[in-house]
Amino acid sequence: MAVGFYYKGSELMVDGVSMRSIAEKHGTPIYVYSGGLIVQNYRRIADQFPGMDVMVAYSVKSNSSLAILKLLKDQGASFDIVSGGELQRVLKVGAKGDRIIFAGVGKSKDEMRAALKAGVKEFNLESEAEARRLNEVAKEMRTIAPVAIRVNPDVDAKTHKYISTGKAENKFGVSMKRAIALGNEIRTSLTNLKLQCLHTHIGSQILDSTIHPRLVKKMVDFTETFIRETGAAITSLDFGGGFGIAYQKRQKPLDLKPFAKAVAPELKRLGLSLRLEPGRSILGPCGALVTEVQYIKRGDKKTFVIFDASMTELIRPTLYEAYHEILPVTKRRGKAEVVDFVGPVCESTDFIAKDRKAVLPAQGDLLSIMDAGAYGFVMASNYNTRPRPAEVLVKDGKAKLVRKQDTFDDIVKNESF
Amino acid sequence: MAVGFYYKGSELMVDGVSMRSIAEKHGTPIYVYSGGLIVQNYRRIADQFPGMDVMVAYSVKSNSSLAILKLLKDQGASFDIVSGGELQRVLKVGAKGDRIIFAGVGKSKDEMRAALKAGVKEFNLESEAEARRLNEVAKEMRTIAPVAIRVNPDVDAKTHKYISTGKAENKFGVSMKRAIALGNEIRTSLTNLKLQCLHTHIGSQILDSTIHPRLVKKMVDFTETFIRETGAAITSLDFGGGFGIAYQKRQKPLDLKPFAKAVAPELKRLGLSLRLEPGRSILGPCGALVTEVQYIKRGDKKTFVIFDASMTELIRPTLYEAYHEILPVTKRRGKAEVVDFVGPVCESTDFIAKDRKAVLPAQGDLLSIMDAGAYGFVMASNYNTRPRPAEVLVKDGKAKLVRKQDTFDDIVKNESF
Repeated sequence: MAVGFYYKGSELMVDGVSMRSIAEKHGTPIYVYSGGLIVQNYRRIADQFPGMDVMVAYSVKSNSSLAILKLLKDQGASFDIVSGGELQRVLKVGAKGDRIIFAGVGKSKDEMRAALKAGVKEFNLESEAEARRLNEVAKEMRTIAPVAIRVNPDVDAKTHKYISTGKAENKFGVSMKRAIALGNEIRTSLTNLKLQCLHTHIGSQILDSTIHPRLVKKMVDFTETFIRETGAAITSLDFGGGFGIAYQKRQKPLDLKPFAKAVAPELKRLGLSLRLEPGRSILGPCGALVTEVQYIKRGDKKTFVIFDASMTELIRPTLYEAYHEILPVTKRRGKAEVVDFVGPVCESTDFIAKDRKAVLPAQGDLLSIMDAGAYGFVMASNYNTRPRPAEVLVKDGKAKLVRKQDTFDDIVKNESF
Repeated sequence: MAVGFYYKGSELMVDGVSMRSIAEKHGTPIYVYSGGLIVQNYRRIADQFPGMDVMVAYSVKSNSSLAILKLLKDQGASFDIVSGGELQRVLKVGAKGDRIIFAGVGKSKDEMRAALKAGVKEFNLESEAEARRLNEVAKEMRTIAPVAIRVNPDVDAKTHKYISTGKAENKFGVSMKRAIALGNEIRTSLTNLKLQCLHTHIGSQILDSTIHPRLVKKMVDFTETFIRETGAAITSLDFGGGFGIAYQKRQKPLDLKPFAKAVAPELKRLGLSLRLEPGRSILGPCGALVTEVQYIKRGDKKTFVIFDASMTELIRPTLYEAYHEILPVTKRRGKAEVVDFVGPVCESTDFIAKDRKAVLPAQGDLLSIMDAGAYGFVMASNYNTRPRPAEVLVKDGKAKLVRKQDTFDDIVKNESF
């Protein structure tokens, strides 16, 4: 069976199911996920490193749907979480503690306690202050917290300023010099921490395949120095994620082979296992946001396609100037013209695509906003008192509603007046 | 009793209540609103136009808390809504249909039906296609829909590109020329619409007090032309909102006097009533987001204050490069230094203030992010599976929890796997 999104005649399909049938059954706007493509993308990464001890910890923040977490868990995925809420999510789908890595710059004491109780594999430490707090919490609980130090290698990921994280002036991680000082502090004073890994993550949506091999070189050199200077029993290197996907036709997803080729011999030589935290590269291409055209508005200078999806379902275009392909659910003949695709929200920021060449749809047409599987629904809001949309996961050729749309009562549930 | 936010000794207060007491009782991050200031700001606008027939329709999208809507309703406010969900909100607090104006570029048929059933005062039409759909829906319901045409006067509001709406190339409203054509179409063909108002809104956060008087001149001239050319029985002019507030110390809130002075004689001369749709100018200064410092992180190039508020509670800095004053809940002595205030969310975009001069707080300190009453909570998300925060409204010297924080069960309520 065909997997992913493709046309059968003039109809857009997902894993053998017509997108129209899903939208007509459950309404719009709606997120639709290809379970087949999720598995395929996960396997592509997990199988990229044969003969190596590799832990692929799916980055839950990119799409935390319980149904998708369950699907990935059943494939053997581990999980990279960033909050107590994400911990509850992965535990809910049956993930064991030793499959969970806890990252994030602002871990609270309560979150640390919950993660220690769950027996997580590792905490990624982002600062000295966090190391000290975690040591204190672990001591109170009479346990040892396994940790990695997140290192900023000061490598430019050459990506959007809003998704670059590996440079020295951002809030994530510590510099190499300070990592060594922290390693020594852990050895001498923070005795309830067990330092076992060095971690790095330099940004999102990286498309240049020379960057990760350079990062490998830099991190491997550093690891040797680190072990020499701190005496730490490092057993793993964690390279995070950031593997880019093709949002635009002219782009190609990041080729992981140069990374795999660079990392395999080095980790073998040092006797280290590998950890990865991919999110977008697994989920990004697997989701589409289906929307119905409400109005065609011909302005004096521009033509607007106003549909029922908006920044409340998908904020990436507004937030990152992100590009999403927009496809007709049923192909339409006609001459392409230049239009803006916008939502109904009362905000100039509420656009999905500007100055896009497309065959003009008609009122009532269904459109599919592509590559919305990652950082889509998870960032949804109830702005303008709009219900957050339903989500459908197609698995083994069957479409299943895995999240119902908010009702008005859901939205105001916790309010009183 | 003192109203709004102010220091008593070294403690930040709101309407006579200590901010610390609220944070300690209900936890952080938390939104706190000054009911006294909400009333004062509403009155300042409502009382600005003595002797005129003025309808002040509070822009619900800026802050749609049921408790705040109720407070404003009790002051006699009308409501400007942009969705079926907002309609349900204002009806829930007891607003009558003739107090409701329905705006928005993407009204669905269901929303139109609900609004007609509620007997709303007016629909602000944003396009020809919308006028035709509304006419059809009204005809089906055997009723007449009262309408305004939203006109783009092509006046530059001199504000952030993301909040400017009055120029010709955006999705809102129609040009003056097309407004006349639409007026004639309504008269001749769309006989289930009753055209009674012309509406304009040129952008948000306008601080230049010469802009509204210019807009008055342009709209009044246009109204005379419009009536002459279409024969429409226009009885009101709606100038929308966009009145700016002082986010920064060097700013001054928009002075409404020049607008009032310009608009009063003109509307009297034409026998028209006035409509306004303020949101931020009433609510903006009335809300603060209180947060607890989690970590002080001294990087090589920067010092970060990592607190427990983030872009999931307040996205304005990320979205609009917006400035919010950050005040200590308890004043601290010390030398000011330059720091970044950031949240715990795993995103480089997650900052509240960059390069801000402040006395360095300590871990555990409470800080108050000011002027967060509008476009704050309403844009909150569960990104990173973070619960959306609680909200407290202080009224008559009493702090009342008007929204509980999300629980994990709330967040996953509609999901299945």
